[in-house]
Order: sequence, then structure tokens, then C-alpha cells
Amino acid sequence: MAVIGAGTVGGGVVDILVDLMRGRREQLASRTGLGSGAGDAGRRLPGGVAIELKVVCDVRDEWLAYAAEKGVETTKDAEAVLARDDIDVVVELVGGTTVARDIVLAALKAGKSVVTANKALLAHAGAEIVKAALEAGGSLGFEASVCGGVPLLGAVRNGLVANDITSVVGIVNGTCNYILTRMTREGKPYGEMLAEAQAAGYAEADPTFDVEGIDSAHKLAILATLAFRTPVDFASIPCEGIGGLDVMNVRNASEMGYVVKLLAVGKKRESGLELRVHPTLLPANHPLAVVSDVFNAVEVTGDATGEVLFYGRGAGRMPTASAVVADLVEVARGTAAQATRDLAFWAEGEPLKVAPVGESRSRFYVRFSVREEYGVLGQIARVLGEHRVSIASVIQKEPDRSEDIPIVMLTHEARHGDFCAALGEIDGLGFMSQRSVFLRIEG
Amino acid sequence: MAVIGAGTVGGGVVDILVDLMRGRREQLASRTGLGSGAGDAGRRLPGGVAIELKVVCDVRDEWLAYAAEKGVETTKDAEAVLARDDIDVVVELVGGTTVARDIVLAALKAGKSVVTANKALLAHAGAEIVKAALEAGGSLGFEASVCGGVPLLGAVRNGLVANDITSVVGIVNGTCNYILTRMTREGKPYGEMLAEAQAAGYAEADPTFDVEGIDSAHKLAILATLAFRTPVDFASIPCEGIGGLDVMNVRNASEMGYVVKLLAVGKKRESGLELRVHPTLLPANHPLAVVSDVFNAVEVTGDATGEVLFYGRGAGRMPTASAVVADLVEVARGTAAQATRDLAFWAEGEPLKVAPVGESRSRFYVRFSVREEYGVLGQIARVLGEHRVSIASVIQKEPDRSEDIPIVMLTHEARHGDFCAALGEIDGLGFMSQRSVFLRIEG
Repeated sequence: MAVIGAGTVGGGVVDILVDLMRGRREQLASRTGLGSGAGDAGRRLPGGVAIELKVVCDVRDEWLAYAAEKGVETTKDAEAVLARDDIDVVVELVGGTTVARDIVLAALKAGKSVVTANKALLAHAGAEIVKAALEAGGSLGFEASVCGGVPLLGAVRNGLVANDITSVVGIVNGTCNYILTRMTREGKPYGEMLAEAQAAGYAEADPTFDVEGIDSAHKLAILATLAFRTPVDFASIPCEGIGGLDVMNVRNASEMGYVVKLLAVGKKRESGLELRVHPTLLPANHPLAVVSDVFNAVEVTGDATGEVLFYGRGAGRMPTASAVVADLVEVARGTAAQATRDLAFWAEGEPLKVAPVGESRSRFYVRFSVREEYGVLGQIARVLGEHRVSIASVIQKEPDRSEDIPIVMLTHEARHGDFCAALGEIDGLGFMSQRSVFLRIEG
Repeated sequence: MAVIGAGTVGGGVVDILVDLMRGRREQLASRTGLGSGAGDAGRRLPGGVAIELKVVCDVRDEWLAYAAEKGVETTKDAEAVLARDDIDVVVELVGGTTVARDIVLAALKAGKSVVTANKALLAHAGAEIVKAALEAGGSLGFEASVCGGVPLLGAVRNGLVANDITSVVGIVNGTCNYILTRMTREGKPYGEMLAEAQAAGYAEADPTFDVEGIDSAHKLAILATLAFRTPVDFASIPCEGIGGLDVMNVRNASEMGYVVKLLAVGKKRESGLELRVHPTLLPANHPLAVVSDVFNAVEVTGDATGEVLFYGRGAGRMPTASAVVADLVEVARGTAAQATRDLAFWAEGEPLKVAPVGESRSRFYVRFSVREEYGVLGQIARVLGEHRVSIASVIQKEPDRSEDIPIVMLTHEARHGDFCAALGEIDGLGFMSQRSVFLRIEG
């Protein structure tokens, strides 16, 4: 097999496979039931096949040096790797949706199996890639694409197979969760906490994909596809990140016994599939509320097993590499072939109808900023009531900066469309000093 | 396939399989990539095989009635079921280690595959059963035996296969966790909370297996066998339940920021394997500390992926049935065969050395009851210090019932053997009014 893309995760894969081929050979061979490559035939168990890392490919010299130091053949020529008959499995760790797509499709069309951690690629072109795998008979592994170190996709595909899965709700982006955890603990604004996350290496110099929720939506698209057994149109997922989140709302939520998390939400409703990514209030005692720092967690609800929660490191060199190597073992054991055939629905199936966001129902947190106090609360309550939104609790605060008076409310469950219509009407009233700000509540 | 043992879980399996064979046929066939039995050939995907529930066996009429109502053939004659050539898979849900052992071994020796939820049987006779499966070439599935509804064993065997697993720590008995949760919340004694658990259906009339930690030790034996890839001698697991737990210690722990949980602990140490079950103090913010009521959770630590936590319902009709059916799907897909071959180490391997409990290290909670105050704390501290145990915090309380003066201490990490030697010496001192009581601290 070959690794194309020798960055952070690629280096981790090299680490594990070189261990597999050298120092921990015996132990890992025992654990996987597999031998570990050339010169190791004596160790292969009956029926076992080998994982042999033959070549590492990257265009960057500095990254190739690491693999070369470990004694692995290196190259800059991906096409040559794809043309080699002695390479039966390609690990794609290039990332992105252009070069990576070409590599994955070319490898599959050449009859090779592919293991990838590329969530953007699968979210955008999953159907095309699965189709290519099915046509050429290769296996496709992508456990690492969602919540890297947590064996979540395998559990959804195998362990929970007897269930009709009705919802998947999770924290799937460690960068956002780190920033939100710091905002909650320290009460400091987003910009300052983002800068610290960048300094600590938990956020990229350009953090857009993470903080705008796009990475979370990629993962939700893949997870929902597997959980609900339906192709998902990535572009149809409403997606709001944490970039616009005022820390004042995080503090208000804390005072009311809630924590703000960036959630990826997938629910099967009578009206269709509900998919969305947005900052969300969770009760402080909710299992996802206590997931801190860079950790990820996903709660899957099945009709037989109820809620099951998976928690761990969603990203990083070794956790992600761990998932890549688990997929390689499945390919080598031969069990990935059946698992790939089971994905036929992704290439062929009709997308389940995505429910209009306006039809979705939840509780809401809302902050109004008003210029005067007298009679205002009554007017807000009247408009909400006219739109079938009922108030669960209210805090009216002392004027804050700029002398606005904040009124914070939690509502009972309401239809999203009704709630937005009410806010639109309220925002047009003369006493409002700023547009109202709302967040959904889950759990 | 046949179900032998038509109790609570057996009924749940019938529920899911009858759905599979009737109402939800299309949906489940799509999810599993399998057809669903006789008369359904047209639905089978290419290469797919069927799960067809042919007969349900039990000696109790009242349990057979449920399956019969669903239109499934029933019988009281297990031997006749095992003799049938048209039954290729047997689900054993009889429980216990006598009749169930005979059924499982007979089915395997007849070349059938076996799926079981029987943790006692696997903990006691796992090696013998795996050997029988390997010899006859049948598959063995037992996902339901540990943390029923949580797909934990599959994750350890497949998703985390690239890891050297260094520890498994978990809450694996819902009955104990329910009782401990109530003792913590309400500060009421064990006996009262056990009675309420029994009234609520969360504890058996004879709760011994659960409350004495035996059930937890069964699950730990299986989980440790898979995680550490070594056979485990069940009898060598030190096991302490919650029956002797004084609620005073639960209350003291709460005051100091800790929660008491019954933990199953497996750790790979330089000195060997450390396995134990006992009530344990966890810091209130530990991921396992927030696992309440009948829920189970297990934290698995791998060298690549770090800590991964699995959380959900460990028992009950439908969660356990969900795991049984997942195993049936693996057998039908053909992937269980390789997974069974990977268990060869269990039948053949040398047991890893179990580390002597005295060599294990942890922090400790200890409560001393003394008759007088003057100079006592100094004497206790001196003895502890002589045994290399250092004190992290102390609360000396007002005299409680019977006018004993309780002194509660948390220690820094110490060797278990040293700590016990110190307690033995202290308990012999004249000022002690009762034997000291200690609990381990994890996390």
C-alpha cells in the first residue's frame, strides 16, 4: 500500500505502520490477526494477509524526509504510484476536493482500494466515489473522516445495524469546542479566544472552515448518510458557525444553567430529514454539555438501543492515524469489501427529502436589546403569543454597555418559522435598539 | 436460525427479527444489505444471505406464547433444535453456565454459529467455547455480553485495532449504578436504595450477582481479554461490590468533590495485568462521574487514539437484543468468520501475568473512627508516613452517631500493599473505635 499526502496524519500512519513492520511487529500481528509485510511471511497467520507500506508520496521535501528517515521509499510522483501494479491500497491524505478527488477516483478506477480521512471530499463527492469503488470492485474506508480517533462510523454501520436510527447530534469540531470552552470558562470574547487557540495550535491561521461550521457540516453529511441510509445534498445543510457569537450570550446561557456548543444535528422527522449546524444551548447536565476543550462527542439514538454516546479525540496526528490504520486492517482482512458493497445506496439511492428549516421545532434562547423599559416586555410577549411562541423564562437586566437594556428569554418549543416571523415583527418595533439575537436549545 | 431462551432479551430479538421479516422488511434489508428470509428471495441483494428466524425454544409455556403470537414456530426441545440441519445459527439466551454451556458447545460442535449474550459463560469458559468454534469452523458472536446496547466490543476489536490498549475502566453494571446514583443524590443508605431499585425493576429479587460485583467482573474478564489480547483467569479478579458500602462514605466523598462508582478496572502495567472491581472515588468532573442511573460507560485508552468513551444502556430487552441482532448480521454477512479466527489467542494463548494487588498503586480515601482527639491525627500521620503513604487532605469531623470521631483522609498515590500495612498497624492502636474503611480513587 501507499500513502499519498505525508503531512501530520500521514506521518502518524507511517509511525504506526513502521511499528507494525518493526518493533511491535509480533504484538500487533497478534492483535490484528495479520502479518506485517515483506520479509515477514513466517509471521502471517493462516489466511492472513500483509499490510506493507511500500511508498510515501508528497510534493513537499520536508515531509518526505520524515518517511525517508524511517526507511520508507518516497516519491513526489503520485501518478507513478497510481500506476504501480504492486500497490493495491492507496491512503489519500492530501485533503481538499480537487487533487484529492483525482487521486481517489484514479486509484479506484485502477482497481485499488482507497482509505481516506477526507471529509470535504466525501461530503461533496461521496456518491461519485462510492460508485467508482463499486464499479471497479475496490474497497473504500473512511472511518477517519468523522471524529478521527473515535470509532463512530463503524459502530453506526455495524454495531447499531439492528436499529432504525432516529437522530445523530454531536460536537464534531475540536477547534470550535476549544474556543467555546474557553469563552464559557473565562467569559472572554470570541476574537481573543480564537487568537489563543491559534497560538496553542488548536486553530489554523485561516480558521474559516472550522469556525464557520463548514467542517462540522462535512462530517454531518457523512454521518447522516450512514445513519439514515440516504445520500445527503451537502449544499442543503443550513450552517452557522461561532464567528458571530457574542460572549454575552454565552454568559447569559451560563446564568440560566445552559452551555453553548456548536452542534451538528441530524434528525429523522415525519416531514423529512432535518440537518443543521449551529451554536446551541444545552442544559449543563446534558451528556454533550460536559464535553470540553478539543474533545468530540456524538450521541446516536436508535429505536432499539436508545441513546449511545461516543466520546474522544476527533482530530490530531495519532488519533486520526489510528482510524486510517483500522481501515487498512479491514481491507487486509477482507471485511471492507462487504462493507463497501453495503454502501450501494449512497451511489444509487434517492436523496431523502430535507425538511424545510422553517418547519423544524425547538426551544429558543433570544436576547432583545431595547431602549426603554416601560411596557416593552408586554409588547414582546404579545407578538410572540400571536405567533404561537410561549415564554418559559425571562431575565430583564440592568442596562449594559451603550445603555441598551437586554431582555433575555427562553421559549417553550416552537416552530422555527413562527419564531422567526415573531422576531421579524419585534425587530421592526420602535423600542428595539439592535436586532434580536437567538440561539436554539437542544436536550 | 433459532433462539434458545425466550425470556426478556429473547422476546426483544423476536421483536426485531419479526420486524425484519415483515413490516420494516424493505428498510432493514436496505440497512443491512441482506434479505430477510423465506419468501423474500427477490429482495436479497447480490451476494446477500438471509436472517430467517425459524424456531424459538424455551421450557416455559408463558414465554413461548409471545413468539407463537408473532407467528414463529416454538418448541421446548432444545436437543431437537440443535439436531436440525436447516438451523445454521443458534442464539443462546438461556443464561448461566450449565445448560447454556451444553447448548453452546453442542451447537458449535454441530458446525453451527453461535450468538450469545452470556457474560458468565464467556468469563468462565470463553477459552473452551472459542476453541470449539475454531475447531468446527463456526462463528461466535458475543457483542451483547458486555454493555448490551453499546457497541463496545466491536469497537475494541476493529475500530481501535491499531492501538496498543493500555487501560479499560468502566461502569458496567446498571443496577449498582442506579443504587449508587440514588445514594449520592439522596444521601440514603444502601439497603433502602436497593429496596427501591427492586421495586422499580432495576434489581433482581436476589441481587447478589449485581451488587457483589460478580456481573461486573464477568464483563471485565471479557473486555480485558479482547482489549489486552490475552486470556484472563476469571477467578483471579479481586472483586468487591457495593453491599458493604456505608452511605457515610458516599456523603464524605461528595463533600470532598468526588463521586462513588462501582468500577471495573483493567490496566496493563510493567508488572503485569491489573484487574479489579470495587467501589471507587472519581473526581466529580471525570467523564465517568456524570454517568447516572442505569447507564453504563467504559473508557478505553489506546496509545494512538488516547481516551475514548462509550456510553449507553448496558442492559434491558431492546438494547441487548440490538446487539444480538448486530451479531446475527455479521454472521450472515460472513464477516464474523474472520472475527472468530482472530480470537485464536483466547483458546491458545498463555494468560498474561496478573499483577499482585499489593503492587498496584492509586490514591486512597480512608475513614478512621477514633475515641479521642488528642494527638491521634499525629499518630496516624506518623504510621502512614512510615509506610510511604502521604496525606493529600484531611477532614476531622464532629463526633457522629455512637460518639465516634471520624477522620477522613485522601492520600497521594501509594502502593496498595504499603497502604494496607499502614492501616493494619493503625487499626491496632488503642484509640481506634472501629476498623478503618478505605476506597480507591481513580482519575
